[in-house]
Amino acid sequence: MPASRPRRPGRRPVQDATDLRAHLLDAAVQAYANAGVAASTNRAIARAAGVNPALVNYYFGDRLPDAVVEERLLPVMAEVMAGMGEPPETPLALGSRFVDAVCGVIERHPWLPALWIREVLVDGGAFRDAVFSRIGALPRAVAARLGDAQRAGRIDAGLDPRLVVVSLVGLTMFTAASAPIWRRLFDADDLDIDTVRRHAHAFLAHGLASTETPP
Amino acid sequence: MPASRPRRPGRRPVQDATDLRAHLLDAAVQAYANAGVAASTNRAIARAAGVNPALVNYYFGDRLPDAVVEERLLPVMAEVMAGMGEPPETPLALGSRFVDAVCGVIERHPWLPALWIREVLVDGGAFRDAVFSRIGALPRAVAARLGDAQRAGRIDAGLDPRLVVVSLVGLTMFTAASAPIWRRLFDADDLDIDTVRRHAHAFLAHGLASTETPP
Repeated sequence: MPASRPRRPGRRPVQDATDLRAHLLDAAVQAYANAGVAASTNRAIARAAGVNPALVNYYFGDRLPDAVVEERLLPVMAEVMAGMGEPPETPLALGSRFVDAVCGVIERHPWLPALWIREVLVDGGAFRDAVFSRIGALPRAVAARLGDAQRAGRIDAGLDPRLVVVSLVGLTMFTAASAPIWRRLFDADDLDIDTVRRHAHAFLAHGLASTETPP
Repeated sequence: MPASRPRRPGRRPVQDATDLRAHLLDAAVQAYANAGVAASTNRAIARAAGVNPALVNYYFGDRLPDAVVEERLLPVMAEVMAGMGEPPETPLALGSRFVDAVCGVIERHPWLPALWIREVLVDGGAFRDAVFSRIGALPRAVAARLGDAQRAGRIDAGLDPRLVVVSLVGLTMFTAASAPIWRRLFDADDLDIDTVRRHAHAFLAHGLASTETPP
């Protein structure tokens, strides 16, 4: 059928082809977030995208996961890095900016937390190596800066600067990824990314310390 | 072959059968943590346990995942609840006790974090419903108590009491589950559960607030 031959002259303008390719990538990233890479065949992704499976094979063959990494996942990680900007003065400001950068990308790309849990965090995840080799520099830079701050006596000696990075990811990506659980557990449909962001800022600033003035 | 008939009179004392059953459950919980429930056949679990597959079928049939929930996962959750004891006075003490209780079970049951990520956190996880219905009371009780403390002005107004529970899970279970990543990322084999516990306590007490005395 014609839809399986998108570049046949006169049938499909370049603009359409570009849109279709992007549409397939969007469908793929959503399928990978929902069900994982291994469970998402090109056929299932084609069905979700409402196109003939031959089109998916035509554009991507067996390299659809690679294309999702290059054209969806890594650009989103680049957005996080851009959102970090110049390193701010204090550890609290650094942590807060990380929270804002990650919450910003989650808001713009709601598929990110589930995909990241499935394919980066879980052992054997399809995208773990790609993420490691391509964005490892950011968490290392943040941890190094926090280590400097700790050696200068500016954050608590009990903190582990590397685990601060983990905690920042926990306050944002993990919290967003587990939202379906907590919404159900607490019957709380009001928990959105703004709540997550505000909560994270308060947690970074005070932890669970008492706000009562000591007598 | 004889090993597939464990209850044949005179061949296998009761004590052995009990040990063997426990041994198979241990092998199953490890396989589920490593590869997930769906990817772990009775045959693979038998191979890991070093027994004939017929034995796994004899003891569990197709109910091995249920047995793991009842006899491994829920008892561990009960340990967390027991570790919480009577509710302590302050939100910080409550959070710290939660951290200690969860880090304690992770130390005793190292398979827990990976299993929990795979089969509770991830959408479609095999154990999510069981965990929901059986241990939902604890996080709800902790959130309610933190809500009371917040209404009494004892913790920061920007915190969400329900998300505090999520943050406590993030500081413990999520941090432990992602240890393989962060050990590799930071080349940090020294990150163990004691580091996680100490870090979490410091984070709860101060967040990333400056420890410098204001001028």
